[in-house]
Amino acid sequence: MLNKNVQTFIACDAEYDEATIVLFGAGFDGTTSFRPGTRFAPSAIRNDSFGIETYSPYQDKDMLDFSYFDSGDLELPFGSTNRVIADIASRSAQILRDGKLPFMIGGEHLVTLGSVMAVADTYEDLHIVHFDAHADLRNDYLGQKLSHACVLRRCHEIVGDGHIFQFGIRSGDRDEFRFATAHTYMNKFNLNGLAQTIEYLKGKNVYLTIDLDVLDPSVFPGTGTPEAGGITFNELRNAVTSVCSQLNVVACDVNELSPQYDQSGVSTAVACKLIRELLLALS
Amino acid sequence: MLNKNVQTFIACDAEYDEATIVLFGAGFDGTTSFRPGTRFAPSAIRNDSFGIETYSPYQDKDMLDFSYFDSGDLELPFGSTNRVIADIASRSAQILRDGKLPFMIGGEHLVTLGSVMAVADTYEDLHIVHFDAHADLRNDYLGQKLSHACVLRRCHEIVGDGHIFQFGIRSGDRDEFRFATAHTYMNKFNLNGLAQTIEYLKGKNVYLTIDLDVLDPSVFPGTGTPEAGGITFNELRNAVTSVCSQLNVVACDVNELSPQYDQSGVSTAVACKLIRELLLALS
Amino acid sequence: MLNKNVQTFIACDAEYDEATIVLFGAGFDGTTSFRPGTRFAPSAIRNDSFGIETYSPYQDKDMLDFSYFDSGDLELPFGSTNRVIADIASRSAQILRDGKLPFMIGGEHLVTLGSVMAVADTYEDLHIVHFDAHADLRNDYLGQKLSHACVLRRCHEIVGDGHIFQFGIRSGDRDEFRFATAHTYMNKFNLNGLAQTIEYLKGKNVYLTIDLDVLDPSVFPGTGTPEAGGITFNELRNAVTSVCSQLNVVACDVNELSPQYDQSGVSTAVACKLIRELLLALS
Amino acid sequence: MLNKNVQTFIACDAEYDEATIVLFGAGFDGTTSFRPGTRFAPSAIRNDSFGIETYSPYQDKDMLDFSYFDSGDLELPFGSTNRVIADIASRSAQILRDGKLPFMIGGEHLVTLGSVMAVADTYEDLHIVHFDAHADLRNDYLGQKLSHACVLRRCHEIVGDGHIFQFGIRSGDRDEFRFATAHTYMNKFNLNGLAQTIEYLKGKNVYLTIDLDVLDPSVFPGTGTPEAGGITFNELRNAVTSVCSQLNVVACDVNELSPQYDQSGVSTAVACKLIRELLLALS
Amino acid sequence: MLNKNVQTFIACDAEYDEATIVLFGAGFDGTTSFRPGTRFAPSAIRNDSFGIETYSPYQDKDMLDFSYFDSGDLELPFGSTNRVIADIASRSAQILRDGKLPFMIGGEHLVTLGSVMAVADTYEDLHIVHFDAHADLRNDYLGQKLSHACVLRRCHEIVGDGHIFQFGIRSGDRDEFRFATAHTYMNKFNLNGLAQTIEYLKGKNVYLTIDLDVLDPSVFPGTGTPEAGGITFNELRNAVTSVCSQLNVVACDVNELSPQYDQSGVSTAVACKLIRELLLALS
Amino acid sequence: MLNKNVQTFIACDAEYDEATIVLFGAGFDGTTSFRPGTRFAPSAIRNDSFGIETYSPYQDKDMLDFSYFDSGDLELPFGSTNRVIADIASRSAQILRDGKLPFMIGGEHLVTLGSVMAVADTYEDLHIVHFDAHADLRNDYLGQKLSHACVLRRCHEIVGDGHIFQFGIRSGDRDEFRFATAHTYMNKFNLNGLAQTIEYLKGKNVYLTIDLDVLDPSVFPGTGTPEAGGITFNELRNAVTSVCSQLNVVACDVNELSPQYDQSGVSTAVACKLIRELLLALS
Repeated sequence: MLNKNVQTFIACDAEYDEATIVLFGAGFDGTTSFRPGTRFAPSAIRNDSFGIETYSPYQDKDMLDFSYFDSGDLELPFGSTNRVIADIASRSAQILRDGKLPFMIGGEHLVTLGSVMAVADTYEDLHIVHFDAHADLRNDYLGQKLSHACVLRRCHEIVGDGHIFQFGIRSGDRDEFRFATAHTYMNKFNLNGLAQTIEYLKGKNVYLTIDLDVLDPSVFPGTGTPEAGGITFNELRNAVTSVCSQLNVVACDVNELSPQYDQSGVSTAVACKLIRELLLALS
Repeated sequence: MLNKNVQTFIACDAEYDEATIVLFGAGFDGTTSFRPGTRFAPSAIRNDSFGIETYSPYQDKDMLDFSYFDSGDLELPFGSTNRVIADIASRSAQILRDGKLPFMIGGEHLVTLGSVMAVADTYEDLHIVHFDAHADLRNDYLGQKLSHACVLRRCHEIVGDGHIFQFGIRSGDRDEFRFATAHTYMNKFNLNGLAQTIEYLKGKNVYLTIDLDVLDPSVFPGTGTPEAGGITFNELRNAVTSVCSQLNVVACDVNELSPQYDQSGVSTAVACKLIRELLLALS
Repeated sequence: MLNKNVQTFIACDAEYDEATIVLFGAGFDGTTSFRPGTRFAPSAIRNDSFGIETYSPYQDKDMLDFSYFDSGDLELPFGSTNRVIADIASRSAQILRDGKLPFMIGGEHLVTLGSVMAVADTYEDLHIVHFDAHADLRNDYLGQKLSHACVLRRCHEIVGDGHIFQFGIRSGDRDEFRFATAHTYMNKFNLNGLAQTIEYLKGKNVYLTIDLDVLDPSVFPGTGTPEAGGITFNELRNAVTSVCSQLNVVACDVNELSPQYDQSGVSTAVACKLIRELLLALS
Repeated sequence: MLNKNVQTFIACDAEYDEATIVLFGAGFDGTTSFRPGTRFAPSAIRNDSFGIETYSPYQDKDMLDFSYFDSGDLELPFGSTNRVIADIASRSAQILRDGKLPFMIGGEHLVTLGSVMAVADTYEDLHIVHFDAHADLRNDYLGQKLSHACVLRRCHEIVGDGHIFQFGIRSGDRDEFRFATAHTYMNKFNLNGLAQTIEYLKGKNVYLTIDLDVLDPSVFPGTGTPEAGGITFNELRNAVTSVCSQLNVVACDVNELSPQYDQSGVSTAVACKLIRELLLALS
Repeated sequence: MLNKNVQTFIACDAEYDEATIVLFGAGFDGTTSFRPGTRFAPSAIRNDSFGIETYSPYQDKDMLDFSYFDSGDLELPFGSTNRVIADIASRSAQILRDGKLPFMIGGEHLVTLGSVMAVADTYEDLHIVHFDAHADLRNDYLGQKLSHACVLRRCHEIVGDGHIFQFGIRSGDRDEFRFATAHTYMNKFNLNGLAQTIEYLKGKNVYLTIDLDVLDPSVFPGTGTPEAGGITFNELRNAVTSVCSQLNVVACDVNELSPQYDQSGVSTAVACKLIRELLLALS
Repeated sequence: MLNKNVQTFIACDAEYDEATIVLFGAGFDGTTSFRPGTRFAPSAIRNDSFGIETYSPYQDKDMLDFSYFDSGDLELPFGSTNRVIADIASRSAQILRDGKLPFMIGGEHLVTLGSVMAVADTYEDLHIVHFDAHADLRNDYLGQKLSHACVLRRCHEIVGDGHIFQFGIRSGDRDEFRFATAHTYMNKFNLNGLAQTIEYLKGKNVYLTIDLDVLDPSVFPGTGTPEAGGITFNELRNAVTSVCSQLNVVACDVNELSPQYDQSGVSTAVACKLIRELLLALS
């Protein structure tokens, strides 16, 4: 008798009960205004993950020594943003109820809202660490409040002032930067200030959200709105390893890969390697 | 003093008052479930239209002898399908009020609904001639009623039984084909029966809607859901020329080009040439 | 508790015991001399199969009414052709032992050899129906006997004179065409003679092997060695439907898609649709 | 001692003295107004020619039985159209002086002018057989007389009325079609009338010029100005085989491949196969 | 009544009379010897400019607070380099006569010559600040004096010794580097020496010309002749901001984007963002 | 009489007898498990080498002042790894016998084995300097000992402990890193330690092997297994210039370009420029 064709991110093939971290894909790009395509990210990442090793020479750890579960992708109803957010929240909530860490692969950045809603219901006094090129702090975008350009603004409505820490931001309208001055901690352009932030957040519950376009487009061209002047892969890798290994990260997500804009496959490979480092640092 | 940079489909540079046909783009692909990208069609078509001639040796007519106006693209709020449909209806309605023929360039096929709503408000007993690979007759798609896969079903709710004539259809679920048997005239696979349809529709008000994927994917690969076994360019060109020159076409649209899936530019060139033939046949 | 992420060709999600047809992928391209890439075909086909419908208006049948099982892809040791052939033969043999029909998705055409070996062990007096642009009848290629260019020659050594029927052939060296005259039935350029072949093969055991490059490159550009002057999709669809519904086909394969050479995705969509028609015609 | 790396079109490796046909590349696209790239054609054709066979099952002839010489590409000074034309004429003239047939691979269609100049100096009463989608009969283009869009008009100034026979033409401005009516034999849209033309031209000196965009863009997408509604590969193959085998063709060229617009490589493969058929038919 | 479809670089929609800076496109690549395509740059930049913000967090300035006019693209006669240069000079001259700053978007680097001619007619003692990977100091290229490879040499003939300041240069033949030693100020490989140059040029009239291939190809792959070992985006952004805000820049240009060589769109996005920073620094 | 079309890497057109360095291509990728395509590298490099200059401003040397010979590509029998290795060894051996330095352009990294075998037969106490992202120290891969993933392990069997010096390594399984600790000198992640290595190797015979994926994927995306976090072009250029100018390099190779994964051509340009620097530093 032959087996069914189970597909996972590399080495995420534990039984659900044994796993401490559960992946799922939320390939939604329905509010993307400029160039869509993040819907293709979860499946591309899963597929190309077999081009990387399970062992990290940076952390000297091997995924084979831990238990991860990949629960596949949500089937999301394009055209109904509200239902999409609800479906994501529901998946995160179930993983949290089972005492595991939800690890979401987007999708456009709006998907973070669904997961943050579920996590904020579970963990008190939630703080968000946010790596991104864009502030994502608009109140609305062409009249839409549920938009990728507004996602951290919506999250702010959940977690409140002083609970969002933004790094690498180098694009937004003037109002977003003003809002940040008043309501979030924002470190523009680079990762300066991360060490102090980590010190401050020790012992607190942290949601880690990574918009991969925080990377320089030379490193990560496969994204809808590339923004020149970003950080290097090693800067981001070091930063997220520090966050995950030193703080109490209770959930995380990795967003905004649009694999079809990078025919070389490098952007997908970057995402895969970063996810490996995250999974190992969280273990 | 230098002039502003006005961009139009080739030879559509008349003054609004003089024009009898008015183009507009509706680059919406927000409900596209499989592969997005029709949002890029109107601007690609406008740009590449300068690679074709204004003269048609098929009809021995020249666009320079007529007056067309290109009113540019609607700015559509991705994420809110209802508002998109309303904005499209509003643009069509204005053109109709000014006694001109609205010629819409999509976008996914759902955009047709907005224009049909406006046209059906203006013209009594509206009939729809529909070229497509897909039936588009689903009642809903993943629970959504406003979906590209349902657009002719929604149009049927407006124009009623026996008012929709479908050609080239070769894909759908079983229920769609059953619905067609009961409620529309459907010619599967090819254009047989077009001559009789034209005979029957003479003197009636006709809305012509063309999903370019009715063409064989060899001719038109640049589309989200290519469906093998389609018709040739000359078959479609002949068909739409007949419809436009022999019937009382009061509005029309051309949809479902996704230029980024055809790096050769051939699909965009096909769309441009077909639009030229349509404009000439409608003049 | 969340489910594992099972991936199949659309609607091939039956339990193994219930299925009458079992798919597997053999993404091998290790002897491809010109342009590699068929290794990517099985996963691309599985992925894009969700862009087609399960219902065929051509046959008025729906995949949902039958039971198919997709057993995933073989992990093949590139660099060792002998072991690859043996692994393929082994998978086919197991499916045959369980009383099911093996349906292989290549891979370069050499993979057919493994499956034919297993099938010829099971079924007496095996005949092969072969659609292809290339004769594949070389005795060796740069000294290699296990080469895509020799696969039908190797099959001939198994099934013998008068047991191979070739259609659509339009490329080869002079010796291959001479060999065909003496040892196989070859119909050059098109499908003429298929009706008589079907008549002749009624009641006999038939292995059906399809090299998709039999299609014209306009229809199917995504292949390593495109050969102008081929047949249309509807010609091939009609032909294979006739073969499968009128003959005793005991195994089949579909080969030589190289998805990365067709950025439009049309070639993969063509393969998916043909596989659906084959699965329905075999049911 | 190791040999130098000689590169030729497949099987065109005879010594110069033995060859009866001499190839050369003229990769010029300096007047191309819309989309450049034919400069890359000669090298792409030479490279991909090793993906086709030397034997033609259509003609039952093998290139290995004849002697062809490939003299490589002219190094053309972009920016100086006059010098480019002169360099081409000079190369053709040398080949003619040596009693051989010049076979040029363009480049944009303007390169034909240089070769026709040299051939008309050698052969009296030269006639031109011209396959193309475009009339190329403009008197000037944006004031330029040496433009791809004017090349047959310039040739007409050399060979005179009634000496140019055009097939497959489906694009041009109104004046070009009027000029054709008065001065050339033009068969619009298809190849009807070729048989009579061949009958008429028997015994006369013929220059054969092929703009590959005469093919339908589905067959040949890799070209700067694709023009829907063209002919099939087999139609063109049959036509040029007839011309070459029945008429006294004294020189020929094949133009307007832009390989980079067809990432699949199909267009280059089509060009290679057509050149093989031409070389065999001319032998 | 509907409006005409005016297309501009983002936020460059002022009335001509109010604008202090006037953009125009010069999409000429007629002397490009290696890989053409800069002709597509102006329209690609205009189109993708809507993917960036009007606000710069680097300068804390917003384009909405200033008045820019985009006068569209020159229609240039390919094949006649002299006329192209003259047309560019004429456009620049008109903008200068109206007391505005001409901001040209190329095109290959040769277009700079036309603009420098006009500017040198208007402003005395003109100095040129030049960022580039290539020296562009050849006396001729394949006999052509009007070539992209010679443009700074031609400019030197206009502005004279000691008036050209070159940065980032890392490619050229030996003679070009010798010429630089004698006649220009050249800073090889990087931007060292820029601070002193700025100090020296204070109060002088400066023409700023940027060949975007000065950037490392990882940052800017979309160019005809990528040259490894270049500078980063932030290095270039800082440099040009300094030049524009501290010196009397009377005209500038940005050249050598070939968007079709970077399917990711990153190179076009880099160009857009740099142009925004330039426009803001010049205001 | 016209010349044959000789194709070489730029400026490698000396007579064989005069040359001190002999290039050859070994475009083999038959054991590549993830993404094939290095077979296309030698011809792409030769072709695009005409986009770079022969003069290096870094070394102030010009290739025109030295004598190099390009002996073209080996025709390798895909499907038979043993014969491929033997053919490569044979070509290297011949060049060595003639007293010249073999300079091989791969191909996947396994090709190094063939050349090292020949060189180790000629030169005693051979040391290997190895730049790579991957350790390549597996004992076998899916049971294959002749695999790209095992090549340095096979070389270790030839040259022994303490004779291999690895730089830039950032990927491998745990066992490979353990093996390196015991048997090679490995510098992880970067080029630290190179100066000491050069000091140590002075006067010894050195084989230099460069897997171009040691570069960061932003700089060199065109490779089968891109590995984020690599070194810059200038770091690699400096390093190999030091090795070649200060050590007794007796043979070298450059591997793992897959040009088709980088449509921009940048990766091929990087390879060309690095080869120029190597050739000059070796002269």
